[in-house]
Parts: sequence; structure tokens; C-alpha cells
Amino acid sequence: MDKQDIQRLLEEVRAGNLSVARAIEQLRHMPYEDLGFAKIDHHRSLRQGFAEVIYAKGKTPRQVVAIARGMLLPRTAHNILITRADAAIYRAVHRLNRHAKFHPLSGAIGIRRNTENVGKGVVLVVAAGTSDIPVAEEAAVTAETMGNRVESLYDVGVAGLHRLLHHHEKIAAARVIVCVAGMEGALPSVVAGLVAVPVIAVPTSIGYGASFGGLAALLAMLNSCASNVCVVNIDNGFGGGYVASVINRL
Amino acid sequence: MDKQDIQRLLEEVRAGNLSVARAIEQLRHMPYEDLGFAKIDHHRSLRQGFAEVIYAKGKTPRQVVAIARGMLLPRTAHNILITRADAAIYRAVHRLNRHAKFHPLSGAIGIRRNTENVGKGVVLVVAAGTSDIPVAEEAAVTAETMGNRVESLYDVGVAGLHRLLHHHEKIAAARVIVCVAGMEGALPSVVAGLVAVPVIAVPTSIGYGASFGGLAALLAMLNSCASNVCVVNIDNGFGGGYVASVINRL
Amino acid sequence: MDKQDIQRLLEEVRAGNLSVARAIEQLRHMPYEDLGFAKIDHHRSLRQGFAEVIYAKGKTPRQVVAIARGMLLPRTAHNILITRADAAIYRAVHRLNRHAKFHPLSGAIGIRRNTENVGKGVVLVVAAGTSDIPVAEEAAVTAETMGNRVESLYDVGVAGLHRLLHHHEKIAAARVIVCVAGMEGALPSVVAGLVAVPVIAVPTSIGYGASFGGLAALLAMLNSCASNVCVVNIDNGFGGGYVASVINRL
Amino acid sequence: MDKQDIQRLLEEVRAGNLSVARAIEQLRHMPYEDLGFAKIDHHRSLRQGFAEVIYAKGKTPRQVVAIARGMLLPRTAHNILITRADAAIYRAVHRLNRHAKFHPLSGAIGIRRNTENVGKGVVLVVAAGTSDIPVAEEAAVTAETMGNRVESLYDVGVAGLHRLLHHHEKIAAARVIVCVAGMEGALPSVVAGLVAVPVIAVPTSIGYGASFGGLAALLAMLNSCASNVCVVNIDNGFGGGYVASVINRL
Amino acid sequence: MDKQDIQRLLEEVRAGNLSVARAIEQLRHMPYEDLGFAKIDHHRSLRQGFAEVIYAKGKTPRQVVAIARGMLLPRTAHNILITRADAAIYRAVHRLNRHAKFHPLSGAIGIRRNTENVGKGVVLVVAAGTSDIPVAEEAAVTAETMGNRVESLYDVGVAGLHRLLHHHEKIAAARVIVCVAGMEGALPSVVAGLVAVPVIAVPTSIGYGASFGGLAALLAMLNSCASNVCVVNIDNGFGGGYVASVINRL
Amino acid sequence: MDKQDIQRLLEEVRAGNLSVARAIEQLRHMPYEDLGFAKIDHHRSLRQGFAEVIYAKGKTPRQVVAIARGMLLPRTAHNILITRADAAIYRAVHRLNRHAKFHPLSGAIGIRRNTENVGKGVVLVVAAGTSDIPVAEEAAVTAETMGNRVESLYDVGVAGLHRLLHHHEKIAAARVIVCVAGMEGALPSVVAGLVAVPVIAVPTSIGYGASFGGLAALLAMLNSCASNVCVVNIDNGFGGGYVASVINRL
Amino acid sequence: MDKQDIQRLLEEVRAGNLSVARAIEQLRHMPYEDLGFAKIDHHRSLRQGFAEVIYAKGKTPRQVVAIARGMLLPRTAHNILITRADAAIYRAVHRLNRHAKFHPLSGAIGIRRNTENVGKGVVLVVAAGTSDIPVAEEAAVTAETMGNRVESLYDVGVAGLHRLLHHHEKIAAARVIVCVAGMEGALPSVVAGLVAVPVIAVPTSIGYGASFGGLAALLAMLNSCASNVCVVNIDNGFGGGYVASVINRL
Amino acid sequence: MDKQDIQRLLEEVRAGNLSVARAIEQLRHMPYEDLGFAKIDHHRSLRQGFAEVIYAKGKTPRQVVAIARGMLLPRTAHNILITRADAAIYRAVHRLNRHAKFHPLSGAIGIRRNTENVGKGVVLVVAAGTSDIPVAEEAAVTAETMGNRVESLYDVGVAGLHRLLHHHEKIAAARVIVCVAGMEGALPSVVAGLVAVPVIAVPTSIGYGASFGGLAALLAMLNSCASNVCVVNIDNGFGGGYVASVINRL
Repeated sequence: MDKQDIQRLLEEVRAGNLSVARAIEQLRHMPYEDLGFAKIDHHRSLRQGFAEVIYAKGKTPRQVVAIARGMLLPRTAHNILITRADAAIYRAVHRLNRHAKFHPLSGAIGIRRNTENVGKGVVLVVAAGTSDIPVAEEAAVTAETMGNRVESLYDVGVAGLHRLLHHHEKIAAARVIVCVAGMEGALPSVVAGLVAVPVIAVPTSIGYGASFGGLAALLAMLNSCASNVCVVNIDNGFGGGYVASVINRL
Repeated sequence: MDKQDIQRLLEEVRAGNLSVARAIEQLRHMPYEDLGFAKIDHHRSLRQGFAEVIYAKGKTPRQVVAIARGMLLPRTAHNILITRADAAIYRAVHRLNRHAKFHPLSGAIGIRRNTENVGKGVVLVVAAGTSDIPVAEEAAVTAETMGNRVESLYDVGVAGLHRLLHHHEKIAAARVIVCVAGMEGALPSVVAGLVAVPVIAVPTSIGYGASFGGLAALLAMLNSCASNVCVVNIDNGFGGGYVASVINRL
Repeated sequence: MDKQDIQRLLEEVRAGNLSVARAIEQLRHMPYEDLGFAKIDHHRSLRQGFAEVIYAKGKTPRQVVAIARGMLLPRTAHNILITRADAAIYRAVHRLNRHAKFHPLSGAIGIRRNTENVGKGVVLVVAAGTSDIPVAEEAAVTAETMGNRVESLYDVGVAGLHRLLHHHEKIAAARVIVCVAGMEGALPSVVAGLVAVPVIAVPTSIGYGASFGGLAALLAMLNSCASNVCVVNIDNGFGGGYVASVINRL
Repeated sequence: MDKQDIQRLLEEVRAGNLSVARAIEQLRHMPYEDLGFAKIDHHRSLRQGFAEVIYAKGKTPRQVVAIARGMLLPRTAHNILITRADAAIYRAVHRLNRHAKFHPLSGAIGIRRNTENVGKGVVLVVAAGTSDIPVAEEAAVTAETMGNRVESLYDVGVAGLHRLLHHHEKIAAARVIVCVAGMEGALPSVVAGLVAVPVIAVPTSIGYGASFGGLAALLAMLNSCASNVCVVNIDNGFGGGYVASVINRL
Repeated sequence: MDKQDIQRLLEEVRAGNLSVARAIEQLRHMPYEDLGFAKIDHHRSLRQGFAEVIYAKGKTPRQVVAIARGMLLPRTAHNILITRADAAIYRAVHRLNRHAKFHPLSGAIGIRRNTENVGKGVVLVVAAGTSDIPVAEEAAVTAETMGNRVESLYDVGVAGLHRLLHHHEKIAAARVIVCVAGMEGALPSVVAGLVAVPVIAVPTSIGYGASFGGLAALLAMLNSCASNVCVVNIDNGFGGGYVASVINRL
Repeated sequence: MDKQDIQRLLEEVRAGNLSVARAIEQLRHMPYEDLGFAKIDHHRSLRQGFAEVIYAKGKTPRQVVAIARGMLLPRTAHNILITRADAAIYRAVHRLNRHAKFHPLSGAIGIRRNTENVGKGVVLVVAAGTSDIPVAEEAAVTAETMGNRVESLYDVGVAGLHRLLHHHEKIAAARVIVCVAGMEGALPSVVAGLVAVPVIAVPTSIGYGASFGGLAALLAMLNSCASNVCVVNIDNGFGGGYVASVINRL
Repeated sequence: MDKQDIQRLLEEVRAGNLSVARAIEQLRHMPYEDLGFAKIDHHRSLRQGFAEVIYAKGKTPRQVVAIARGMLLPRTAHNILITRADAAIYRAVHRLNRHAKFHPLSGAIGIRRNTENVGKGVVLVVAAGTSDIPVAEEAAVTAETMGNRVESLYDVGVAGLHRLLHHHEKIAAARVIVCVAGMEGALPSVVAGLVAVPVIAVPTSIGYGASFGGLAALLAMLNSCASNVCVVNIDNGFGGGYVASVINRL
Repeated sequence: MDKQDIQRLLEEVRAGNLSVARAIEQLRHMPYEDLGFAKIDHHRSLRQGFAEVIYAKGKTPRQVVAIARGMLLPRTAHNILITRADAAIYRAVHRLNRHAKFHPLSGAIGIRRNTENVGKGVVLVVAAGTSDIPVAEEAAVTAETMGNRVESLYDVGVAGLHRLLHHHEKIAAARVIVCVAGMEGALPSVVAGLVAVPVIAVPTSIGYGASFGGLAALLAMLNSCASNVCVVNIDNGFGGGYVASVINRL
């Protein structure tokens, strides 16, 4: 029951074709979500400009293309982000749309139809070690496809502080920072101590032994002594980039 | 070696009392942090306007008062936030400064000398159950003392959705949301699905048995299927309020 | 906006005092949950007959009494269940209502105003060891207050099978079984193998060392080789009794 | 020692061929389980009508067929459920019995020889995400093969409440609900808050990082703030469907 | 239905007062456990000579005395073991029976009415550190009260091998060894490597930090590279002494 | 320095060729372990009669054969046990010795050169489910090769007690019991309650979800309410069979 | 059997009073540890100069004094270290020896009778937060009492790098560093990156929520990306100071 | 801004071309790390003589060769260590430099251009079981390539003490010991009790069941009752060898 339905009902009441009692009954049983959540859906489409997202893992190239084709239909030129894809999926998607761009380290595919930057400042993606780069790349591609200027700073682990501090100006210039680290997960604490902006910490499963699949880094980040740090799931580069995008639009 | 030291050195060079070579040597060994990190410190004081914070747990009333007195000295009227205090500490702090205000559920004390709102929008603090209110209150007091307009919404757990949805407008109006929940920690996922702004999830240790001191809620929040959620430590209401404040200033 | 509000609005439309457009607008912004979730609330009150529940832990006697007084107001004679109370709370509640009955092992207080049995069969509460009895009692009192005939069978741990098998007829006669055990948590598997009805397993924190606060029993129950077993939280006698009541009404 | 043995013994006592003392001795040492547990076995066959179940994982097609052939022998037309099978097993089973039906997502095979619905109402299987569907399908096929009318509702995760609430009527119509979710495992709490019937929560291992193989969802469900929730093992769709069937027969 | 009941029934059959058919029926429904498990109970009393055991923790002196009094009634002079008692319980028990002997480190009380040694050899109790002695004492008192010659060897941790090896002869002379250790739990591996008899390893919760309440010692013992080691629960001195006693009787 | 060396030294002292002082010096620096631990080694060979054991996992057929060949050299006819082998290793070992016998479920190979039974009674190996049989077989082959009469009882899980109780006599006849179970690990508690002999519990990694690789069964067994249970590592059938053999020799 | 025993034996051989065969026999059974491990004991006393250590927790003042008195007896002036003591123990110890010095934060008592510095360089103790100081103090007092020059650097957490870098020279001057940190445990990685000497990381239980009693810091330190870091137990300041002392003597 | 930049600036000040005020400004904003951390870099190269290290896992042969080629450029003959490589990488590296030596068990490749021993004493690598040798080899190759004399002692597990004690002299002669063990991880405690030098404990993931990937050994080592033990990550042979090298240089 949408606006037209209600209008029709009310006009029938006015015309005397429908008693007040029966109209109440109909309104009463009208699926509330058509009223209430259409509004939410509208919110959803308002906030689109955000890319639509497809999580490709476990899907066939054919499935991914089918979903992407549906997303490409609307007139409004949403960007499309496909995460955890592989080369086969990329080839299929690229046949569908020539703007598809593949990021092989993270498996992310971006289709950028709208290149406007809706983010207000720079999202900086910092990664501790070279092995953390795939997750960092996913964060960076996510933020870019969501309409942000993104810069990145890789291989600046805390055991070689000078590498990090060398880029102090770049760090100071960011409006939001996504900080990706495995092993002891110490980088977000150090980076957050240098700035006054929000730092989204992304633990990675990089490490071995007592890393326990990223648990060590996750716990470290949750216990950060810097107060401007918040955390997303292990290896969740997408989540880090998404939260940063949501913040950078404010 | 501060600004005066450098000035003196350079003047001695100009006066010919110091050779360029020796001046280089002195500059070279000058504690880099006096140059480099004074800048950071300046940044720190620039971002002050943020309240200074004292973590009172394990400190005596006398110790807290001593620290607070030092913070009250500067001309610039910083706000002061004291977390995890008790009534005895409050009485001592209140003797020091009449503006101190005690929030007994969370043990937070705010001394608001600067009532300007530096936050751009409303920070909404949502709590799932009545037992989560102390943590939520800590978040709210933190955000207020950091210069934000704060609203709150308590006892809106997911097993009674209508209570939550009843306040849809309030939720939709927030610029940043701090979402506090124990037990199954599901509230941030539901709230984040209703909005397009960042949601800071704060797990609490409320629960028993397989709650394992808040672990259940923490893991749930880290695994949220809503992408605009990030997480701070268990019972870390201060952290939730602080991250929200950092974001709301942007 | 309830039924009366809608009636009034529709009558104003019929009377021509309100245009269709404005009426749509009002309906549109009418809090959907007033429509949608009133129905749910109605469901709620329909299912009342179930006792109202107060979790007393962390509440003062005065607070518990205040809540209980509110629950005693409605004409419909709901039963009231207060869990995790102590003697002081009991005395206060008993002054409020003479039917309040205290169960000191579990700390449960039942106020049974409606003694009709809405459950279709017998709820049997089985406990492995004498130390598990407080949790079992909470389950039993919950199911009773929810309107069930309840029987119990205590101290029938699996290391002395004959004690359990001696009561085979009682076990066979139950319509739903709540099975409470700590330590190795094996009882639900054994009991469930003897019957064809649902068995609600309640792990307890009874045990020491590698019991890890009930984790051993919880994991054992989740891994039961009997298929008619489902599990609630550690020490959650209330939950066990509640689920059994919901099932026994069907 | 079965009924015939006892009859013979008693007749020898009657005939005076056996003294009372020696008869007692013989009865005393007679394998108790032949008396006692035949009764239990009888119970077992009474409750059959329930399908017989084969867990195919780790078995060869030949082994599964051999077991299934044995199950097909009795005159009474039991249904047969084979879980965690693959296409090769299906082909072998299908050659054995033409009614075998394969459900490839879950690997479940149902042989429905008895299509009577012994369940009293509808079992509703709800799944949070598309990745949870294999586990949900296992629950649905289990409940169907156990003789229940089953309906399902997929992809109704809590971060998009409107999708769930859109199906409110379907949810309200169920007699038992199996609720399948991975990641933060919040769906059972939300669904259980909408109804007054038992909700069997099935955590799945869907998720990554701090999902820890379904631990996050499991803990969340055990800590549900809705009281009408009980839980089975991670990915245990069969268990969920079985418990629901046991309940729906009551 | 006990022996007398069966006799009576058989005599009524012989007398022609009861038909064979009805006698079968009665026998059939006779509680199997009265036949079957009386035998087991008899086994139980046969194996008594083993002490009866009371776990005193959480019981009042009055309750412990009541149970002990019941145990003291039978003609056969069982020993009685009371574990985890305190001085108040001891005083009460001592008033009941003058032979009660208190072991204050472990809180064990032994009432030895039968001083015969039913164990075939020596049970040796070895403890790694002085802090492990309470648990070791519980094991020793248990084994003694169960009728074993017990020797002990304390403070022979693996970081000072010479202390252990100095007692090589004593170790070599034992028929069963109970080996108690906290911290890294290495002692059972070392001791078991010196002998060819069974070693019952008892982890203790002694340690701090990453001992995690005895988990470190427990895991170490379960992973012993010596094959003649088996393990009981953390701090379970009683269990260690009991298993040793069961073995030493063989 | 072995017996011959000492003899020579002492004879030189007697002959006056070596002063007492220098002899002391030589004895003093003589590697103590050659004296002290030869005795231990002698003990080792005395207790041989126990099979020699090769853990084949991670070794090539060639390596296993080389080790086995060395073990076959001594005149004394030790049995040889090879665990966790595969068909390729078996073929190689069988070429070396025609008595090698392969047990394909567990991968155990026994070479029984000495068929004397050194164990005093029967070792009974009980397994809960058919999936636990490989581990049970390893225990059985170990005990057999160590010189024990072994009986086994498979598929007697606690959810179908009658299957277990049907074999009560067999259980009662054992001198030592190895009890193998995965999932909820309840079998050892039930079996141990039926007997007065030691029960070695072997948890298996059989199960899924919250079994956590056998952790659930392990914890359950450590928390057994039966006192005559001790535990070895997860899937450690060899350990279970070995401890049983050590006990059965006493 | 000590040196005198051997001398006597050899002389009897020489005198012809003892046959070579019997002498061998006696030597053979002579407790090897009297030969072998006296040497080790000598090693032990050689390395003394290290303080003797008493772990006071759980001991009475009287017990601690008794042990300390024994340690004070030998002529060689060992230092004595008492850890985890309280004021009452201190007063008792101080009556025994006037040099006893109490460190109230850590509860350490040092009795320094030998003030020689056996350590070759400076042991630097670094602590991240003020709450970590008690553990750091224990490390410092341990190292001092073991004969080292100790310096300390407190409150230099990684979120305020300038505080740490300000003391770069002090850090660079250390020969061994003990690095104490709770919460995210990042400090050792940062400090170790600044130097080329060994860094002993001591995690503390400081933190809350997902600190899990120091587990977060422990895991972080074990996963340090700096290679010159090794780790001791949580809150084990003594261990940190001891390892540093052992290294500093080399 | 390097030395030349500062020289130029100071000369302009001297020449009067630049005011003191502006020079201060420029110095103030000059990237501190160019001054400060060049010094640290210099430190880094001073301590080189240590081998450069490449972690080969996840890198292609081509990538490893490219990095190694860069490391081989400088005049100073650093050694190069490549860890976790395979035969393909080795062949590629060997074509680059004929001194490359492959250690196939650990996958370590050493290129030793500088054979000077910078370590002051012997680094002893001790391994408990043959399965621990790969990790031990990584430690040994690391220490060798870092310029140490390395000895090793393998297969000396604590369940056969005589094997370990046989090598007492070798153990006593070491200046630093790396002690590698899986399963119960007891070896470091035993070894450390025999010596007064630092023992670096390396837990391995060798074991099964409740070894939990090396967790058992790790926890045991952290809880060692020997005070001269510190620990590195599970399977971290490189870390063990590196810390030993850092210590052995002192």
C-alpha cells in the first residue's frame, strides 16, 4: 500500500463509497512497513551515491554478473563495488562494463560511474607490513568507490618508527584514517596518538603461532590506550573503508 | 632545546661566535622531539577544547584533586572529565570547583567550564537494557563534556522492536550514534540498519553464563552485518563517547 | 495515533474538513509502530496469562516492590515471577501481596493470582546433582508460575544410572523436560535418549577446574548425540522453565 | 530372554518342574534390558513415523545405500532422511528408491514414503543471510521429512528490518520457528520478540575473522534477551529441524 | 519389586491363583532397575571397603554430620572421607566420631575405621612446589582412607632435577604415582619417564598470569610425551587419589 | 664409562697403577648418567616386552622400515607397534616382516613376535559412535601389541542406553576399560558408574561446530562425576591403550 | 655417597678388603645424583651472588622471617629478595635485618648485603602507564638486588610517542631493557625498534574488558614485529628483572 | 632536510640573507625525522653485521631474488638470511650468489659473506623431539648467519632425562641457549634449571588434540618455574635465534 493506495482509499471515504469503520480496518491491516519502511528505503536510496556492494566470495562469475547487471540498470549512476573476487569474475564483469577495474591483491573490483568526491576530506589508509596490503587495498578501493579521495601509506610498522614519522605531514592532513595491522596490532595506537581525527583500526590475520588468526591484533586494538580508535572485524578492509566513508561524508 | 634555545644559537652564528659546522652539530644532536613533537604538543593543545580526562579508579580523592587542580590552572577554560569516580572523590573535587557535577550510575564527574558546543550535530546514545545505562551514561557525559549536544534512548532492546522503532525520528536525527548493549549485543546491527551515519558500538559485560564478561556482545558487534558499525572495548563508555566526539567535530 | 485518532481523521475527511492530500500527509507521518506494533502489543497481552517477570538482581527491595505494584494493577490476574531475589526483597514483596511465595535456594518469588494450568501436560525438571538444585528450582518455579503442572527429579546423575532409570515412568510421562546439569553435562543426552519429547538442557556453573564456569557442561549439551535436545544459557533456570512453558502451551 | 522365554519359565513353575527358588534365580539373572529396554525400543518404534536418519559424511555411496536398503525393508512406510550427502550418493540412493529427492545446497536427501503431516502446525525456517541458506535448507528438509508443513523466509537479516517485518503475518502464523543466522547471530532475538512460540536458534559458521567459526553467533544466541529462544549446535540445521518436529507433534 | 515380590508372584502362579499370561504382564512392567540394578548396587557395596565420600564445600557442619552419621550406621566398618571441610566442620565431625582426623592444608577429614591395606603396593604422591601441597595432601588422604600405603615426595620441581633424582629409589618403588603440579605442569612427564607404572597427573591452579587458573598445567599434562600418563581435573586431588586407589587394588 | 671401564679402573687401583686420589677424580668426572641411567635404561629394557613404538606420521615408508629393521635386530622378540601409518608404509613394512598386520581404520600396524599375554585381565575398549572407531581401534591394537587380551564394544552411545546396558556382563568382566567418545563425551561417566575398575577416557575430535576439535568431549571427561575416570589427549587412542596396558600388568 | 665415601671404598679395594666385583656393584648402585648433581649444586652456589628469593604471597610474616633467617646464615653475603610481601611482613623482616628495604607499590623487599654491581651495564626498566609501575618496580628491585645498575622510565605509552622519544639517549644507553605494558602491549615493539639490545617484555593485567587479564598484552608481545623481543608471564616483574640480570652478567 | 640543507640555511643566516626568526621557522617545520631518525638509521647500520633478513613465505622466487640482489649491493659484506623458503627459491637465489646454502627442513637459506664470529660464546640450540628439528634448525641457521658459533642437541625430551643429562657438559658450556619444544613444552624448565645463562624458549605447534597448535607448549613455557626463561612466539625459530644473537653479542 503506497501513497496512491492511500489516496484512493481516502477518496472513496470522501465519496461515501467506503465507511469509516471499514477504512480503519483496511488501514489497520495495511502492511505497516509500506508506510514506515518505504521511508527507510527512501533514506537508503538517498544515501546511495554510496556504491552498491557485492560480496563475490562463493558466487560464480555468472551470479556476480547477474547481480551487477541489475545494479547497473537504474538511471542514477551508482558506483559498484565487488569484494573478494578473482580474475575469472573480473573478466566476466569487465565484459559487462568497461569501467570495471580490478585490484588483484585484495580481489576488489570497482565500477566507478560517478567520480564525484562526496567525502569532505582525505581518507588515509595506513598499513603496518607488506603482508597487510591486501586488506589495506580493500579498504582503499572501498573508500574510493564510495566517493572519497584516498591516500595510502604502507610498510610503516611500529618497530621502525622513523618510517612512520617521516610521513607525519601526510598523516596530519587526513580527515579519517583507516589503520591496518596484523601481528601485535600496535600501529593504530601510535598513529592515533599523532592526530585528533578518528582512526578506524582493522586487525589482519597476518602473523603465525600466537597470532591465532588475528586475535592478537584484534585484542590489542580493542585495548588501545589512544581514545580516538575504534575497531572493525579481522581482515575486514571493506568495513574499515566503509566506516571511514560514512564519517568522511559528515 | 626550545624556541629560545634555537634563537640563541642562531644569533651566535650570526654574531660569528659559533661556526656553521658546530652549529650543525648542536642542531643535529638536539633532541629531535623538542622540535618535532612540540608541534604535536601544539596539535594537542589545539585540539584541547576537548576536555582533559582523569581516570579515577585506583586513585585517592587527594590524588584526583591534585591532578584536577593542575588542569584548572591554564587560562584556557578546558572542560575536565573524571571517569570511574565515587562519592568521596566527588565531594573532594566539588570543594575544588563548584561546577563539578556527579553522575552516580557511571561514576563520571564533569567540570564544564566551556559550554560551547563544538560538535556539529547531535550525538545519540542508545542503550539496550536498563543494566547497560551506567556505561551509556559514561558515554553521554563524555560526549557532553567534550562539547556535544547529547540525546539518549534507553531500554530499547531488540526483543521488543516497537520500543526502538517508536523513536525512529530521534534516531534519524543523530549525526553520530553510540550504541551500548550487553547480552547478545544485537542492538548496533539493528540501529545501524536504520541510519546512514556512523554507529559506535560499545559492548557491556552485562549478562551471565556464556556472556563471558561481555565477550558474547563484543564478538557479535565485531561481526555486525551492518557496515557502518565500529567497536570499542567492553564497558568502555568513555571510549564510545570520545570517538563520537572526535567524529562529531569533523 | 490509535484507533480513535484514525477514526477522527477519517471523519474529518468525510466531513470535508480535511483534504485528502493533508490526510495522506498525516497518515504518512503517523508513527508506523502505532499501527504496526499495537498489533504486536496485543499479541503480547494475549499471551499474558504468562507471568510478568522481574529480574531482581541489582535492584533494591523498594525498586522491586514498585515494579511489582505496577504489575498488580491491571484487572487481569497475571501471575508475577521475581527471579534472583533475597530474603529482604521477599519480605518487602510479601507485605505488598500475601500470596508471594519465596523459594530460597533459587531466590525465586512467585505471586500466583491465577492458578489455572494453561500448559497441556507435565513439565518435568530433572537435575543431575544436589548442587544443581537451585537452578532447577528456578526452572520449576518459572514453569509453575507460567501455569504448568511441574514435577521434579533431583540427584539422578549419570554415574549412577539406576537412580535415573528407577524413575523411568515419571520421565516417560512428561510432555516437556527441563534437564539441569553441571560438571560434564551428560544428563540431557541420557534423558533425551529415553523419550520422544523436547528436552531443554540447562548447563550450570557447578564444577571446578576445567569446568570453566559451566563451559564444559554447555559444550557437552550443544554436542549432544541425542537430537531432541536444545540448550539455554549457563545457570539460566528461568530460560529453561520459560521455553518449556512456551512449548507446553502449544 | 523375551516374552516366550518368560512364558516357558512360568509354565515350568506352574507344572512343578521348576522350584520357585530357582525360577527367582533365573529371573534375577535374566538380562534386564530384554525386559526393560524392549519397552524403550517399543517407544522408539512408536515414535517412528519420524524418519530414520543417515549421516552420510564420511560414508561411501555403497555404505549409505546398504543402510538405506535396510531401512526400506519394514512394512511400515517410514520416511528416510540422509544428511550431508553429495551428488554421487544421491545417484546411488536414487537407483535404490525413485522417491529420493536431493537438496543440493545442504546435501540433504529425503525419501518421503509417508506424506502424512504429523506436525500440528507450520514450522517456519527463517535465515538471516543468503549464505545461511544451506543450513536452513537442512532444517527445512529435516522438518518436512519428519512430517511437517514447512515454510521458509530467507535473507531477512536484522540490518534491514523492513525485509523481516514485511513478512510479519507469516512469522505470526508459525507454530514453531527455526531461526538460522551466522555473523552476529542477532536474528533469533528479534524474531522471538515478535512471537509467543518457541524459537530454535541455529548458529552458522558464516562470517570471518572474529566469527571464530560460528562462536560469535552461538554466544549471541545463548545470551538472547528474548526468553523463548533455545539453541542447537553450530551449523546443526538437522538438529534445529528435529527439535522443531518434536515440538510440533505435541 | 524385589526378591520377595517375585517369590510371592511365582508362588501365586504355582498355586494357580495367577495365570501365566498375567504373570508375564506383571513381570514385564516390573521396574527393570529393581532387578537389573540391584545387581549393580550389590557391586557397589562389594567394592565398598572403599571409603564413603562427602564433599563438604557448601554444606553446613550440621549437614555434614547428618550424612556422616548415616554412613557410620552399617555394621561393615567403611572408612569415611570428607573433602574440602574446614575447622568448624571438623569439630562437629570429631564430636560424632573420635577417630576423625583433620588435614588442615587440604581440608580433608578421614575417619579410618578399617585400617586394612587393600591396595597391593605403595601409592606415591609427588608434588612439584610447596604451593601444590594442599592438592597433594588431598590425594594422599584419599588414597590412605581408601586403604593404601601412601608415601609422598614434595617440592621436587623440574627446575631443580637433583631434588627429584635424589629420591629415585622411592619413585622406583611405587606401584602407582599421583603427580601434582601447577605452573608449567612438567613434573608428570619427567617422573613418568623414570618409571614403568601408571602416573596420574593432577594439574593445580597454582601460578599466575598465563596460568589461567591451571589451564597451562592441564594442557601440558594432556600433551605429555610420556605415554604412561593420564590426567584428572584441575586441583582434583581427590580424583587423583581415587584413581590411584582403584588401580592399586587390581 | 660402562661396567668394563669401571672394572678396569678398579683393577688398576688394586694393582697400584692408579692412586686413590686420581681414581676418585676419574670417577668423579665420569658421566654420571652412564652409571645412573644405565640402570634406568635397564629398567627400560626390562619393561620391554612392551612393544617398541614408531609414530609413522610424517615419515616415509623407507624411514619407517629403517627404524623397524633396527628394532627387529635384538634377540629378544619385542613386539613392534607402528601408529598412524598408511597402506604404502604397510606394504614396505610387510616386505620386511611377514607378521606385520595392518589395521586400516586407525592406520596402526602391529608386528607381534611375542604372543604371550603379560596383561593380567581383559582390556575392554568401548566406543560411543561409529566415527570414534578409528581411535578405538588404535587403542585396541596398542593394548594387544603390548600383550593384553582385548575386547571391544562399539556404537554404544549414551543416547541409546539399552545398547550399552545390553553388554553389562562384558563391561563387568573387564580389568581396565578404555572409553572412547567424541561429541558430548558422556560415555566414560556412564560406563565408570557401572564398574569399580579404572576407566581411561579418550576424547575424540568427532563432532562439529561447538565441538571445537574435541574440546567439548575433553572438558566433559575432565569434569566427570564418576571418580574412577582419568583422561588422555584428544584422539590419543595410543595413549589410552598404553596407559591401560601399564595398569593391566600390575 | 660423597667424596669421602668413594675414597674409603677405593682404599678398601686397594687394601684388598673389597673385591673389584663388589666395588663395581656398590659404585653401580651409588646414587648418581650425589656425584652428578653435587656438581650442579656447586654451580648453583657459584652463581649465587644472585640474590636468594622468597615468594611471600600466601606465607605468614613468621614463615618469611624463618626462611630469611636461614638465608642470612652463610658467611657469603648474598642479597635477599622477597616478592609480593606486605607491610606486616616487612616490619617482621626489618626487625630481623636493618638493611631490609620495602617497595610498597610492588610489595618487594630487598636486603642488600652485597652492593657490588655484577651486571656489566645498565638495566633499563620502561613502563607504559602509571598503572604498570608496580610490576615495573618489581622488575627494578629484582635487577638491583641481583647486582645491577637499574634505571627506569615510566609513563611513556605509545599513544604519546614524544614522551618516549624524549628519553632516546637513556634508552640507547641501556644494555638490557625490561619493557612493562598492559592494555595493547605495544611498547616493547616500539622500544625494541629503537635499540639493538635484548628487550624483555612483561605484559601486565592492567586494562579492562577485552584485556582479559593481560591476555591482550601477552599476545601482542609474542607477536611483536621487532625481532629482539622475548616475553615472560603476565605481571611477572620478577621474571623480567631476573632474565635481564642473567643477561647483564654475561 | 639533511646536513647540507642545514649548512645552507645556517650560512644564509650568517650571511644575513635570512633572519633569525625565519630560520627558526624553517628549522621548526623541518621534518624532524630527517634529523632525528637518520641517527637511528645510522644505529641500524652500525648494528648491521647482523644479517639482513627476508621472510620468503608468500613471495615468488623472482621477488626474493630482487630483494636479495639489493642487499648484496653495499660494499660492507652483510650476511643474508632468507627464512621459510623452498627449493625453487633456493635455486633462484643460488644462481644469484654461489654462497647461498639451503637448509631444507626449515626452509632457511643463509648467504654468509662475513664469517667472523661476533657472538662472544656458543649459542646452543636444544630440541625436545625430532619433529621440533625444523624450528630448531631455523633458530640455528639464524644464529649462525648472525655471526655466532652454534651447537645443537636434538631429541632430548624430558621423558628420557638420561639423553639430556648425557650432554650436561655441552649444556654447561653454552653462553645462551635456545630451547625448542612442542607438546607439553617442559624442556626449557628442565634445561634452565641446569644452567645460569639465559634460555630462550621456542614453543612449537608439534602435538595434536589439546596441543591446540602449540598453545599448550606456549603456556607451559610462560609459566616456567625456572626464572631464567623467556619466550618467543610459537614456531618462531627465527625469533629464538635472533634474540640469542642479540644477547650473545653483549
